[in-house]
Formats: sequence, C-alpha cells, structure tokens
Amino acid sequence: MAENEINVAIVGASGYSGEELVHLLLGHPHVNLSVLTSRQYAGQPMTSVFPRFAGYNGTDSLIFSEPSIDLIAEKCETVFLALPHGVSAEFAVPLVERDLTVIDLSADFRLNDAKVYQEYYGTKHPSPEWLAKAVYGLPEIHRDAISNATLIASPGCYPTSILLPIVPLLEDNLIDPTQIIADSLSGVSGAGRNASLPFLYVECNESLRPYGVPKHRHLSEIEQELDLANGSPVTLQFTPHLVPVNRGILTTLYLSPVLDQADDFEKWTSAANDCLTKRYADEPFVRITGRERLPDTKNVTGTNSIEIGWVADPRTKRLRVFSAEDNLVKGASGQAVQSFNIRFGFDETDGLPI
Amino acid sequence: MAENEINVAIVGASGYSGEELVHLLLGHPHVNLSVLTSRQYAGQPMTSVFPRFAGYNGTDSLIFSEPSIDLIAEKCETVFLALPHGVSAEFAVPLVERDLTVIDLSADFRLNDAKVYQEYYGTKHPSPEWLAKAVYGLPEIHRDAISNATLIASPGCYPTSILLPIVPLLEDNLIDPTQIIADSLSGVSGAGRNASLPFLYVECNESLRPYGVPKHRHLSEIEQELDLANGSPVTLQFTPHLVPVNRGILTTLYLSPVLDQADDFEKWTSAANDCLTKRYADEPFVRITGRERLPDTKNVTGTNSIEIGWVADPRTKRLRVFSAEDNLVKGASGQAVQSFNIRFGFDETDGLPI
Amino acid sequence: MAENEINVAIVGASGYSGEELVHLLLGHPHVNLSVLTSRQYAGQPMTSVFPRFAGYNGTDSLIFSEPSIDLIAEKCETVFLALPHGVSAEFAVPLVERDLTVIDLSADFRLNDAKVYQEYYGTKHPSPEWLAKAVYGLPEIHRDAISNATLIASPGCYPTSILLPIVPLLEDNLIDPTQIIADSLSGVSGAGRNASLPFLYVECNESLRPYGVPKHRHLSEIEQELDLANGSPVTLQFTPHLVPVNRGILTTLYLSPVLDQADDFEKWTSAANDCLTKRYADEPFVRITGRERLPDTKNVTGTNSIEIGWVADPRTKRLRVFSAEDNLVKGASGQAVQSFNIRFGFDETDGLPI
Amino acid sequence: MAENEINVAIVGASGYSGEELVHLLLGHPHVNLSVLTSRQYAGQPMTSVFPRFAGYNGTDSLIFSEPSIDLIAEKCETVFLALPHGVSAEFAVPLVERDLTVIDLSADFRLNDAKVYQEYYGTKHPSPEWLAKAVYGLPEIHRDAISNATLIASPGCYPTSILLPIVPLLEDNLIDPTQIIADSLSGVSGAGRNASLPFLYVECNESLRPYGVPKHRHLSEIEQELDLANGSPVTLQFTPHLVPVNRGILTTLYLSPVLDQADDFEKWTSAANDCLTKRYADEPFVRITGRERLPDTKNVTGTNSIEIGWVADPRTKRLRVFSAEDNLVKGASGQAVQSFNIRFGFDETDGLPI
Repeated sequence: MAENEINVAIVGASGYSGEELVHLLLGHPHVNLSVLTSRQYAGQPMTSVFPRFAGYNGTDSLIFSEPSIDLIAEKCETVFLALPHGVSAEFAVPLVERDLTVIDLSADFRLNDAKVYQEYYGTKHPSPEWLAKAVYGLPEIHRDAISNATLIASPGCYPTSILLPIVPLLEDNLIDPTQIIADSLSGVSGAGRNASLPFLYVECNESLRPYGVPKHRHLSEIEQELDLANGSPVTLQFTPHLVPVNRGILTTLYLSPVLDQADDFEKWTSAANDCLTKRYADEPFVRITGRERLPDTKNVTGTNSIEIGWVADPRTKRLRVFSAEDNLVKGASGQAVQSFNIRFGFDETDGLPI
Repeated sequence: MAENEINVAIVGASGYSGEELVHLLLGHPHVNLSVLTSRQYAGQPMTSVFPRFAGYNGTDSLIFSEPSIDLIAEKCETVFLALPHGVSAEFAVPLVERDLTVIDLSADFRLNDAKVYQEYYGTKHPSPEWLAKAVYGLPEIHRDAISNATLIASPGCYPTSILLPIVPLLEDNLIDPTQIIADSLSGVSGAGRNASLPFLYVECNESLRPYGVPKHRHLSEIEQELDLANGSPVTLQFTPHLVPVNRGILTTLYLSPVLDQADDFEKWTSAANDCLTKRYADEPFVRITGRERLPDTKNVTGTNSIEIGWVADPRTKRLRVFSAEDNLVKGASGQAVQSFNIRFGFDETDGLPI
Repeated sequence: MAENEINVAIVGASGYSGEELVHLLLGHPHVNLSVLTSRQYAGQPMTSVFPRFAGYNGTDSLIFSEPSIDLIAEKCETVFLALPHGVSAEFAVPLVERDLTVIDLSADFRLNDAKVYQEYYGTKHPSPEWLAKAVYGLPEIHRDAISNATLIASPGCYPTSILLPIVPLLEDNLIDPTQIIADSLSGVSGAGRNASLPFLYVECNESLRPYGVPKHRHLSEIEQELDLANGSPVTLQFTPHLVPVNRGILTTLYLSPVLDQADDFEKWTSAANDCLTKRYADEPFVRITGRERLPDTKNVTGTNSIEIGWVADPRTKRLRVFSAEDNLVKGASGQAVQSFNIRFGFDETDGLPI
Repeated sequence: MAENEINVAIVGASGYSGEELVHLLLGHPHVNLSVLTSRQYAGQPMTSVFPRFAGYNGTDSLIFSEPSIDLIAEKCETVFLALPHGVSAEFAVPLVERDLTVIDLSADFRLNDAKVYQEYYGTKHPSPEWLAKAVYGLPEIHRDAISNATLIASPGCYPTSILLPIVPLLEDNLIDPTQIIADSLSGVSGAGRNASLPFLYVECNESLRPYGVPKHRHLSEIEQELDLANGSPVTLQFTPHLVPVNRGILTTLYLSPVLDQADDFEKWTSAANDCLTKRYADEPFVRITGRERLPDTKNVTGTNSIEIGWVADPRTKRLRVFSAEDNLVKGASGQAVQSFNIRFGFDETDGLPI
C-alpha cells in the first residue's frame, strides 16, 4: 500500500451511486479500495457486474462480498454507504463505534429531527441519538464541520441543486423565504438500479412527467438547511419531474425579493448577483455562469461541478436562478468523495473530474 | 371529388407543423388536399420528402409547388399557413381578400395590438388593420368566434398548454393574477425543421436546458388571453426548457388563491377542482386527470388531446396544475384542424386522433 | 352493436402487443372490443393502465377481467392471444374447440414440428396435434390459408422483417440458400413490458449490444418458412441487436447469387429487383423503396407498413436488402389485425395505419 | 512550463474530435496546450464554446485563434489536426517541413495510394509524395512505426473497430479473406458538429437507418490494412448504420474459416480464440471479452478501450466477432493521443481514460 493511502469500503456497491463511487475511488490517488459489498452479487467479481472497470489496475482481484461489519472494520478506515434509507443506519452506527469514518449517501442521518424523519420516511428512526452527531455533508456550506466529522450524511441530489443557489441568498436576507419555488428535472438514474416498470426504457423514453408531489422526501432535508440559513422556518414549494436522460438535474428557482427590496429591483438583482458570485469565487466545483449564460446539464455530466446562472425579470420582480449538476456525481458520489477529501486533508479535487 | 369535401392548400408544408398537417388532412374525411407548397422542395413529390405518407391513396400525385397565391386561390377554398412569422402575413391577407378561409399557424395574427407584435417580434406588423379581424383559434375558449372566422390565428404550442388550464380559473376569479408561474418543458420538434447547431442530436440528447428567458415570444399571446379572461392585465412568469424528446410539452403551473380565499384552503381547492372539471366535461380533447393522476406526455403524443391534472399543497397554499400535450398536434396542427372542423360545421373530431 | 361487427377478446391485453391491439381494435370499423383480460390488472379499468385510450368512445366501460375461457367463449367470436409462449396454448386449444377464431401472437403454433419447438423453447409442446392445423399468419405469403384458418399463428417481429424480403427471392431461385445472413436491430419494446434490469432506461440508453446469439428463438420459425420457400432446408445466420429506440426493427440482409448467376452480376441484380418489385406491387403494406432510397424505421413506426430497399455491390457480388418495420405493428399486432381482416373478408387495411 | 512537457496545438478544435482532444490533452501530464485554432470561433475564449472545460486550471486563458502555420510552428512541437479531409493536407505538409510532429485525424494521409484516394474522396491528392512517409496510426498494429513517425495518419472510427479484431486472424491465416462482412452501428457524433438536417435531434431520435452504401469512404483504408495483413488483396463487405446514441460504434463481423479448416470447426474456433486472446493479452486498451460476454458500447464510452468478444456458430460454420468502442475516443482522439504517447516515449496510457 502506498504511503498516504486509506483503505476504503463501499457498502452497497452495485447500485448507480455505488458504481459511481467505484469509478471515482479507483482513480483516487489516496484510496485503496479494499472491500466492496453487494448482497445481490456477493461472490462475483466486480468487473463481471461493471465490465467498464475491467481495465483499471487491480480490479481483477475485486470480488463483491456479503456486507459484514467485522470484515469492513478489520480492513478499512473509512466506509461509504450506498444503501437504501433504513438499511444504512444498521451499518453506520456499529462502524462509527468501531472508529471508522462513515460517509453515508442515504437519508438516514441527514435530518436533525427524528420526528421529521418519521413523517417523511414513514418509520421510526432506528438511532435517533446519532442524528445530532452527524454532519450534513454539503462541502460548500459545512466544510469546517465535515473536516472533523466521523459520520457524514451526504446530501441528496435534488437538495444539492437547490441549496447551493439559495443558501447564500437566504443568509444575506436577499430573498423572501415565503416565496421560494424549486422546479426540478431529473434523469432516470435518480430512480436507482432497480427493476421497476415505470423506469423501463420504453416507459421513460419520449415521456415527460411530474412525480413525488405533494411531498417528495428530499423536501425535509432541503427545508432543514433552508431553516438554518434563514434563521427561522422556511416552507418550500418543490416539484420534481422525470425526463429521459441518464444523468443530470436541472433546477429552476423562482425567487422574490424581501418586500422593501422590490422597490429598487435593479439594486436587488445586483446584490443577488454579487452575493452568489463572491460566495463561490473560490469554490472548485461551483461554476457561476451568472448573467452570461444559462446552465445546461450537458456541461456538467460526468463531473463534480454544478453550474449556477440567473436571469432577473423586472416585469415580475423575480430572479430566476438555474442550476445544473450530475445527480450521481455532485448530487451523490462525487460530493461524498469531496467530503472524504476534506475530512482527510487531501486536495479537495483529488479523484474528482471537474 | 366527394360530396362535402373541401379543397385545401398547405403553404409551407415541409416543416414539422406542415408535415403533421399533411398527416392529419390526408386522413380527414372532408378534405381534398389540393395544393402543397414548399420553396425548398418545389417540384419534388411530397412522398420523396416524407416517405412515411407513401402508402396513402392518392399521395403519389402530390407534388410540392412554389407558393403562388393565384394557384391557391384558384384551386382551394381553405388554406393552412405553416410559415415563419412575418412571411405568413404575405399570404394570409391576399388569400382572405380572395375569399379563402385562412388558418394561420404562425404568430402573425395572434396579437390584437401591433405594438405588442413589434415589441416581441422586432419588426413592424405588416398588416395591422387585420389584427382586429383575426380570431385567436383556441377552440375551447373561442369556439363561437372560430365558427364565423375567415382568418383564424392558431395558437402557439406553449400558449395552448398554459391557457387551457388557467383561463377558466381566472374567469372564475379563483386565482391571484399577480402570482402565476408557468414552467414548461418542450420536445425538440418545437424548434422546427431547420438545420441549426443547437438542435443537432448530439447537442440535445443528454441535455436539459432553459432558454427563451427573460421574454419568450409566446409570452405576448399568453398574456393577451389571460388579460381577456381576467378583465385586466396579467403579468406571467414563464420559463421554457428544452428536453430530449421529439414531441410533447409538459407545463407545471404554480397558482395561488386570491387573498381571502387562502383562509379556507380546502374550500378553494375544491372550487378550483369543480371549475376545471365542469368547464371541460364535454370537451372531446381535454382529458381531466384531476386529483387522480398526474399528466404524462406519453399519454397524449400523436393525439389532439391535452391532459390536465392538479395537486393542492396546503403547506404552501398553492395549487399545482399540470398539462401535457403534443406540441405538434394540440399545440399546432391538430388544433388548426379542430378550428377548421368548427368553421365548416364538421364533427369537431373529424380527422383528429383522440 | 353495429351490423357487420365482430365481438372480440384480447387475452393478455396489458403488455406492449396487447396495448397496441387495444389501440388498433378500438379504431377498427368492424370490431366490438368485448373482453380484455389481464391477470395483473384484473378488476381495473383499462384506461387506468393505458390512460392514452381514455378519449375513445366507450373505453370508460372496459375493465380488465381475469382470463376466463367461459367468459370469452360466451361473449366473443374471435380472440387475440397476446400471451407468453407456453401460456398461449392453454387458451388457444379450448377456444378453437369452442368454435372461436383464434389469432395467437405467441410462438406456440408457429412451428410445424414439435421437436423443433422443444429444441428452441425448452419444453415439450403441450398440444402437438394442433401444430399442423395452425396457419402461419404472414399475409403476403399465406393469404389464402389465412382466409380459411381457425387458428392463426401470427409471426414474430424479426421473422416478418426477414421473411418478406427473402421468400420471393428464394422461391425464384435467385439467392444461394447457404449464404444468407440477417443482421437485425430492434427497439426495446421487443423485450416486452416486464420489469427487468437490462431493459431499464439507464441500461439501454446510450447502449448498443448484440444479444440472443448463437440461437435466438425466432430462428426456428424463420428457417421453417425459408425451407418452405426453398423446397429444402436453409440454414440462416441471424444476429439480433438491441438499440435505444422504443419501436422499430431494421434488418440488413446479405444475399449472394446462386453460383452460375454470379457471372452476370448485373443480370442477377436486375432479376432480383424485378422479383421483389413485382411480387409486392399490389400489397398495401409493403413499400418497395428499391434502389431509390434506403429504408428508415422512422418512416414506418406507428404504421403497418414495411419498407424494403436494396443496393447491389458488384465488388462483393452480393445484394444487400434492407427492411424497416414497426415491431409492434407489422411485426406483431398490426399484422394480426391484417390476418383478422383477411379471415373475415374485410378490407385488408381496415383499422390499420398505413 | 513543467519539465517533460510538450507544447501542443490543435487545429480545428471546435468539432467533436477537436473537443475530445481538448478534453484529453487538458488532463495529460506531459502536454501544454498552447494553440487552439478554429476559423468559426477565432477570437472567442475556448470555454465560451465548450463551457464544460471551464473548471480546468488555465483554461481561462485559452482563446481560439485563426489557423496560422507560423504561429503553430513558433509555439509548438506537435500538432493535432482535426480538420476535414482535403483541408488537413494544407497544414500537415508545411508543419512537418518545419519539423513538427503531425498527428492528423483526417483521411488525408491514411492511404498509400493516391489513386485510391481519388477514387474514394473524389479529388486528386494534393501531396501524393507524402503518402509513403506517413504512418497509419493504429498502435496495436503499427506501434514501432508510430514511435519514429513524423506524420501520423490516425485511423477512422469504423476502421479501428473492424481492423483490430480482423488483422490478427488474417495474419494467422485463420479466416477466408473473400468472405468477410462488417456490419457497423454508429452514434450520431460520427457525423460531426455541422448543422445539417439529417442529424437534427428529431431526425435521428427513434430512427434506425443504413447509409454510406455501396462504398463508404472508410472502406478504402480498411481494405488497405486488410491487404497488408493478408498479403494479398481483400474485398470487404461493409455496411454502416446510424443509430440514436451520442457515442459508440458496435461492429458485428461475420467470419468464415479457410476452406480446409471448416472440417474441424471446433479446432478452428479454438485457434481463433487463442489468436485474439494472445495477441491482445498485454494491450492496455483492448479488452477481450472472448466467449464469456458480448461487447456493449456502454462499457467503453468515455474511454480509450475497445471490447472484443465472439461467438462461434457450428450451424453456419462462422465465427461472429463483435467489437465496441467510443467513436470519438478509441475511434478518433483517444487513439491519436495514444500514438502521441508512443511517439514521445510516454506511458501509453497517459492522459487516457481506460
């Protein structure tokens, strides 16, 4: 093992987020991929399930194993959990207790409040005492906390695309927290690698459809983070849509000024412009297209970047802010690796396509 | 020629709207397709450009001709214009003056106000005196006027998807006219059959992007019709997006109650539910999915139907209304044929796939 | 019930072939759709599963029922079976015995030889005594037999695309039966409406892959019909591929002259040209594009037409023949309706989009 | 400039091959991207045309310039030409004469014979004296020659997918050179980044079509290389098809044994199996899937790898060999970078996704 290399496990490595984690970590200069688990494919070579990775050095020896806490704790210092919510907690808690750093891509530790978890996920939270200790792994907002965390709850794909544009504006009191609308389009990989009729090729191709209304689960974590930024509760209008692309989320945000700011609309939009531009000036993965150009998912798929642009509308006194990201990279696995880099003091871009 | 058959011309028959008109009119029981014009393909058999229609009776003899007003006026009683805006007026006026019924699919006669035309289309209107005489061809809203019209300005694709859900609610004073947001997704055929880099397969596939902001041209006709329904000016927030399907528009509308209605949200949503359900109960092409099911473009592509459904959100006190249509059928050529049927007293569904 | 209307049942109406049968038969002038069965959706309104059909007259009253032989025999004179192979025979035999005309879209009665059935389908044929009585429902080849049949075995999608171009050439001894290669591309609806990982949107989009080698099941019926046309056994090389479209099969055939014909290659290609052109001159659903233009699936999807074109290659002394069809229409449900029309003496194009 | 870094120009950097070259060379450890030319976009920042690359270090300063031989010769040691055939030679010859290493992605120097060039490309070759000096840049076949070349003619996308599987078999006299058939499917990026009606999204989506028959231009270079491997002229049957994916070529090869080998078919297939397996055992970019698994383009898009697998068919005495590659990477820009690595003694995988 090379110096400065960390032994890593991926639990639930055979879904789309898991596959993307395998992809990113195989190319990471400070990672030794030690354990890959998959109940469904246990005993099979990783490259028989994901032939795409057959060319990498050392992938021949990677075999999916049953998810065993002992095995992971013995061999690894860090674990990424790419499991369904509910299942994730069963691994996260014992592994943190055995001193591993846990980066959880599920929703299990994203919420601070066990009651909200129960409302949105329909079951009692299995380990509510851990909710307060987990850090919400959105690096651009919680970088310091991530750098010291042992349990990182990596955000959902929609929340990332919505929070990064809104949080700075809310923190600077530039938008009316009662009037926020987020309208999002998602590629089909967001539905996961599960055999399910509505996600067959024929059912999705040439189809445009809303879903997840009235209350998509991601609403809970988005509102939690908006509350934090705002200092008081925010109620968000959020509408996800399914569109026929493999990857990509495009979010359109409708934002209004706080009442007295509307009088000088130009001043307000200029302040919003400055707020976002300055806030993200040094962020390696936030590409501000500003007033110059509108975001397009094809500029970011395959990368950990998010594009954010906006257009002011003096007729309606609203600012429309658009964001585009790859739901599996910045919206899931890439962001998780970004948190890993922060946590271990590596360069934040290590192993991550820009 | 069969009894009760009308000789029809299509001018600009080689674009996507023109192709769909050819398709629909070839199957229309009361239409004899006499003249097809196309500058680009003049002299070529129609079926060499659109091989798909080679199997229909009589299509072998259809040859694209140069667009000649004399020829059309001589041979036909009705003409469909599928031309770019600006060009359309050059044909519409002389043909109406020679007593043909003109159904214009361009924007040239959709607006009542020549100043608004100039603002949105960037040129002086060539025949402003005709604006007041033209009828906006949205059958569900202007059926009576259409039945007597000689110049029918068939609506744009986005306006159809937005107006049908909103107009009844506005007429019944059920929504706040200052808070309407329309967020629309369109397939690529909406961009027309023109060789243009941004609409190449590779540029559109796996791409999600907003465009046409801040002021898409369709905004002008939408607001005109909303003003009419409301009795006073309405300012709409409208955001179109391009998504990788051939056909289909999905519109998501964010609607708020008039202030005092918000207090009894359930009563309000129930009134909105009744308003739309009753208004469209007997319309052959409006399929109300209501609160039962969300619209999906794949349920309407290839047909002249529009699906309209909705979900009330008590958290935000908004009603989200969704509509799905085929942009080339209900959003363009099908609707034009529907107006034709009304104008000539045929069954409104003649020649139109439901 | 209108005069000259036949009561029809569709068994297994909730798959893609079943859905297309519903679509076609709803618009058929001589069909009264009396019974629709679906084990999975029994008790549900047809339009809740296929909202697309909600606009047709009378569809509100169509409810999926459990597949009951008594019910069908009581109410209907004809039945279309859109069931998996093996299951189909359980319905076909008792319904034929109760004097219904059975049009079976499965493979159960396509083969004359029960041993071949067992070789390709892996199980003993349940009713081998019926194999000789069934007619292979390829109208352009077996029209007369179809007109008197009580059990019609409608061909598979690949066989249709391969047999129509080859059979006439084989019958006229124009091609070497030992050198035929069929290379086919199929859209994903060919895999059926079953939740299955390899047919998820994400797995098919941006993927091109061969499958079904070495021996796709359709090979058995193709070779049976080629044997008939040739008068002695033919061994075919057949390679199917899965490509990301909803509908459509494109087949490329590599054909060589019988040995002594190769000497005068031009004479041979001219004879082949004449053979196909004359054979299909009066067929309503065969569109010969000949040497003029190459077939394209987008010219035939949604129709019952097949396009056939060819290019001679003097360098290799081969003729490449291409065919394009909609796998669910000419390749399945449309062809079944075409046989139905022949059987009952209706116009062969009734209810069928050209 | 870092040690061991080479100043590189890309001429014609705004097409799809050019874009992929920019992508690969930006990430190459031994390349300093000094000059990017584009007539169409001269004067514009590279990232305004390709926003995707905005996140890389140093891309802000990259401006497209007019293609100037002086500028390139002054600033660079190596140049990649991503130009149309005919145009490329105008740059290649003067730049080689000024001692630059030229890697040409066009067809201008792929053929040894100026007469063949004229036959296939329709114009007299502008610099026939250079044809003999150029090296055909297929690394797995001509690695040694590439390592000393000054003018490298990088192969076309189809030739790569066809030659890599066939050449070893021909060299070992394992296949009948008179019976080779190559049937290929290509994604739309193969048509280039040119505004052209047949390549619009709507024209390609849901379309499957053959094209380029009878004699696609790539046939000339494929046969030239097959001749070399065979020791005498080979006539190939080659049929390209356009299918709706952005990237990827899937080739299906129909191969027959030399006559006397057919008697022991199993021995023959075993020899073919060994031939390909051994030949490519140590090649970093050739992934032999052999008899285990069939190639799929989705396993290789975005990488420089080619998958090669096969299935023997004892019924027809043929071997079907399948290959899958990314037409823009292994089929164009990636392969060009691979040759660059060989030429300059870098690790062959530098800068190339596996």
